[in-house]
Amino acid sequence: EMATAPVSPALSSAERDLHRHAGCGHTARPSDEQPLEGELNDLPHMEPLAQFADSYILVQAEDELLLIDQHALHERVRYERLRHSGQAWEPQQRLSPLELDLDARQSALVDAHHKRLNELGFHLEETNGSWMLTASPRLLEGEEIRRFFIDLLQDLAQDGGPLETLESKKDHIAFMNACRGAVKANDNLTLPEMRRLLDDMRRIPNPWACVHGRPTSLRISIDSLDHHFGRHG
Amino acid sequence: EMATAPVSPALSSAERDLHRHAGCGHTARPSDEQPLEGELNDLPHMEPLAQFADSYILVQAEDELLLIDQHALHERVRYERLRHSGQAWEPQQRLSPLELDLDARQSALVDAHHKRLNELGFHLEETNGSWMLTASPRLLEGEEIRRFFIDLLQDLAQDGGPLETLESKKDHIAFMNACRGAVKANDNLTLPEMRRLLDDMRRIPNPWACVHGRPTSLRISIDSLDHHFGRHG
Repeated sequence: EMATAPVSPALSSAERDLHRHAGCGHTARPSDEQPLEGELNDLPHMEPLAQFADSYILVQAEDELLLIDQHALHERVRYERLRHSGQAWEPQQRLSPLELDLDARQSALVDAHHKRLNELGFHLEETNGSWMLTASPRLLEGEEIRRFFIDLLQDLAQDGGPLETLESKKDHIAFMNACRGAVKANDNLTLPEMRRLLDDMRRIPNPWACVHGRPTSLRISIDSLDHHFGRHG
Repeated sequence: EMATAPVSPALSSAERDLHRHAGCGHTARPSDEQPLEGELNDLPHMEPLAQFADSYILVQAEDELLLIDQHALHERVRYERLRHSGQAWEPQQRLSPLELDLDARQSALVDAHHKRLNELGFHLEETNGSWMLTASPRLLEGEEIRRFFIDLLQDLAQDGGPLETLESKKDHIAFMNACRGAVKANDNLTLPEMRRLLDDMRRIPNPWACVHGRPTSLRISIDSLDHHFGRHG
């Protein structure tokens, strides 16, 4: 009644699981990140009024009051930036090659799909019968690389287009990184940081749902407030 | 569901009528008024966060977000100040006595209840067979005085305790004055003015309803927000 129901696509169990295990490491300050440059969506100009309980951003958006979950919004913004950034998926040369500990079946897969893997940002060399990773997508870090690569081989071994599967793998990685770096509940934000998040919010295709399908915002129209307070009729 | 239902006693038709005709003249700035000094009610410390749409005050009250109708709250605060101020009902000497145009029946009532009227702040003298008002309660102004006095005589003529009736008359006058001077929707408030209203809100017996019984606040608990945003379970 008071709140307009936000667009909340159902959460797949894989996504729930993902979120549960994504962990929460270093938090990026919204203002330190690259502003989004996509086309404007149909959101109106938004003015941050204040932060509530260090977790929600109170926003005047034309004739609506928005209560925005800062973590959910930042996560969505980070996801969009990461997912659609060519740079994040560019191969980055490793300082020292990573030796992959592959079994015979996996080695055969690398051999068979060498060119395809190269296009996906994984540069591989065979040295003394072992496969070494000399470059990997910029976005992947530490143990993530190995896990991602092994999963990818598994996908290549199965039927179905490997590129399509790569898209879902990219999603997976972008999800995890988006969540990890996003501001949390109980993080204090400055007004400029809130403004920056709202600017980015106007450049993402689905501003009303976080990447896990939960709502980013609770919307309360001035009209429904006036009604609540008996200002009508 | 989201909002805790506020305490909203039913509106009598007399009160509705009163509000409709109360008009809206000069607006008092909350900070120019006498702070209330009554006992603290059970409201927690409240921090004004911002004003929304120049009409609602957004407030952090411990684990609740309050959306407060600034007019409704100021009206209630002004009512309490006026109603329970001895000073407002003290007799104020008039610069020139007011000649009351009374019929024989009304004159007889004044004569019979002279002492009582004096106690209520109405000082009367008979000159050349006419009753003159030489002092009246400080709160009453202009034509209000004459109307109030005639109504009071009417009450005195009827059965029932005149003091009890005076109480309801005082209510009536306090209602009208509270509404008239209160800040309106679309009045810009500074943070210190909001803080002042909230300080006064902690000293009134029923902070959740305006004098007409409409709610002053929409209450949203952090818990219900967390629930809305899928932060639980």
